[in-house]
Amino acid sequence: VVRPADVVEVAAVVTACRAHHVAIVPQGGNTGLVGGSVPHEGEVVLSTARLALVGEVDRAGMTVVAGAGATLARLQAAARASGVAFGVDLGARDTATVGGMVATNAGGLNVVRFGAMRAQVLGIEAVLGDGTLVRHLAGLRKDNTGYDLPGLLCGSEGTLGVVTAATLRLVPSYDEVATAMIGFESVAAAVRAGAALVSGLEALNAVEIMFDDGLALVAAHLGVALPPASRAPAVLLVEAAAAEDPTADLADAVASLDGCVAEPAVARSAADRDRLWRLREAHPEAAAALGVVVKLDVTVPLGAIPDLHRRVRAAVERLAPAATVLLYGHVGDGNTHVNVVGPGVDSDAIEDAVLAIVVELGGSISAEHGIGVAKRRWLPRARSAGDIAAFRAIKRALDPDGIMNPNVLLP
Amino acid sequence: VVRPADVVEVAAVVTACRAHHVAIVPQGGNTGLVGGSVPHEGEVVLSTARLALVGEVDRAGMTVVAGAGATLARLQAAARASGVAFGVDLGARDTATVGGMVATNAGGLNVVRFGAMRAQVLGIEAVLGDGTLVRHLAGLRKDNTGYDLPGLLCGSEGTLGVVTAATLRLVPSYDEVATAMIGFESVAAAVRAGAALVSGLEALNAVEIMFDDGLALVAAHLGVALPPASRAPAVLLVEAAAAEDPTADLADAVASLDGCVAEPAVARSAADRDRLWRLREAHPEAAAALGVVVKLDVTVPLGAIPDLHRRVRAAVERLAPAATVLLYGHVGDGNTHVNVVGPGVDSDAIEDAVLAIVVELGGSISAEHGIGVAKRRWLPRARSAGDIAAFRAIKRALDPDGIMNPNVLLP
Repeated sequence: VVRPADVVEVAAVVTACRAHHVAIVPQGGNTGLVGGSVPHEGEVVLSTARLALVGEVDRAGMTVVAGAGATLARLQAAARASGVAFGVDLGARDTATVGGMVATNAGGLNVVRFGAMRAQVLGIEAVLGDGTLVRHLAGLRKDNTGYDLPGLLCGSEGTLGVVTAATLRLVPSYDEVATAMIGFESVAAAVRAGAALVSGLEALNAVEIMFDDGLALVAAHLGVALPPASRAPAVLLVEAAAAEDPTADLADAVASLDGCVAEPAVARSAADRDRLWRLREAHPEAAAALGVVVKLDVTVPLGAIPDLHRRVRAAVERLAPAATVLLYGHVGDGNTHVNVVGPGVDSDAIEDAVLAIVVELGGSISAEHGIGVAKRRWLPRARSAGDIAAFRAIKRALDPDGIMNPNVLLP
Repeated sequence: VVRPADVVEVAAVVTACRAHHVAIVPQGGNTGLVGGSVPHEGEVVLSTARLALVGEVDRAGMTVVAGAGATLARLQAAARASGVAFGVDLGARDTATVGGMVATNAGGLNVVRFGAMRAQVLGIEAVLGDGTLVRHLAGLRKDNTGYDLPGLLCGSEGTLGVVTAATLRLVPSYDEVATAMIGFESVAAAVRAGAALVSGLEALNAVEIMFDDGLALVAAHLGVALPPASRAPAVLLVEAAAAEDPTADLADAVASLDGCVAEPAVARSAADRDRLWRLREAHPEAAAALGVVVKLDVTVPLGAIPDLHRRVRAAVERLAPAATVLLYGHVGDGNTHVNVVGPGVDSDAIEDAVLAIVVELGGSISAEHGIGVAKRRWLPRARSAGDIAAFRAIKRALDPDGIMNPNVLLP
């Protein structure tokens, strides 16, 4: 493990590794779920822990420069201290780092409003696999001077170079929050409602989907009672945020939805809100309490979500009838997390079955977790031969010796 | 000129040109301002005119697939017919094409709300310079399966391949519009007000900046009187749009601004609004009426805009004292259009002087027009040697024979 203190030292590490034909695995908070930051065959781990500087917030330009090793929580705190906010949030905020989030194009809870990481990265500094230092941190909102290096490095999973810093877009701080949980008669009704909220409610920050079986499991795991609104086949957790209280706007938007089965649960206090979010956020831990979880993270077109859910449940029922299936996700952007756990679960068989369904439905085998090591063998079924040939050409161009994270992304 | 009818014919053209070592200039609406779609030394012009299909609007997913040759106006009409909208608008809408707008990462009037083209492109189909067909048009909001080809091709100015189609994000149609013109005591006050509106007014669609000398010229050119609000050193044209009438929100936001010199002019009707916008949109034609215009399109950090304007005026005064300087722009994103016209204007000298100031202020020599042929010699002063080395490596990887728009972008 090497822990360079600045970009010059990062370049020295890359140069030394090139000279000795040793591969590098960049590692940030190591919170990824597809093995992208884990050494597999003696690679040098390049830790970004010391590249942790968070610069001064530019209030006029609404930007900040952050080192790759800064945690999301530190970045959020710096933004908050200046009266603004960062547009991406996720559960691993205390550990996940800016560099890892850029490298994986991390998504999280507020993509429906602010986009994923790629939409936040206005400038980048990185050392490419051939030792080239790229650096353009001006952070301008409009800058058509050459190819989009920030976008290309974002989501490249450490296979093209080491991201050392990024200029990040900031967003207004919306302190007034309104949260509601709404039960629907069917998955299709909940998905339609989610799409209507995305189009119709400007202050929408998040729209999460859950199901009766998952909620029952979470309630048992946490030892809490479920609100009546969550006793329905499909349940949305909806949050709006604005400078002025968005409760009335949220209530109007909810009142116009079809297919609700009960009065929505509306959070009246921060404690209420935390209770509602806890039901959503405890899904992974409720699954983990049952054993080793097979985790998949997929997107399908919104209209195909009911089909996806029906077919995934049927496939698991066939392959491992005693297993538990937990589905939940960010319905606003078509993203479903599939968790399968319990007796008789063969992770390869489950993964093959679920991802085949996703591909058939025109979806993505990785919504936000990336390809990493775990999904590499699936890439050729998700992307065309031409696309993969273009990926390989780009990889060869920027990392000619193939030393950057060689076990990740490309099959 | 070749006019292929589909992507297979595009691939055949690229293959034939490679075999005969002939270069290709892709051409859409040919509305660019930096010479990027114009043949210079006997290149084949590949017209996208026949790749003009606009697919069915996906209302649930809020996407549409459009051929490269479809005009922006046709795309906008297709979106409108389905009750939604496209997030990018610009004056050349009747001629500019989707392919050209993708290739140049076009910006325009509503970047402050919806971003430039790169933020709209969810999927892409293209033939690369080495003949590879890349195609991934699923248009999912979250899809981390490999390098960001849409983002890379967006803004590549035809130097990596020919974009043949794109899956584009659609946005809600905000039919209620409120427009105001506000005069400020100084450029600095107007810029501060612009930044405050971007942060504070969610429904903000556009915030344009103009100046007393430009407005006087436009008024004389059009033969109209200026509203009192526009008789000020610096003037903002502000537009908000929402599902419900945003007039009150706009008025509240305007009332909280500092440095206004007169009562704002508020549009009470569509005709009023057109009159206010005409004052902004007639700037280029008022300049063109005075002769051949040197046009530059730059971004600087918001705080540096007053400095930029002062220094550009001083430089032109020194180089061509009898010339007219027109400045106007999209102040929300730091973008200023610099027009210089009149006796004694040497375009090279003006360009050198203005772009040197921009680079000194930490700005971009091309905000939204791109590099093309016109600004190629400036790229090494705007981007580092490392960045340009990376651009060259990517270019060689995807266009190994250098047949794609060889006179554009890279010096």
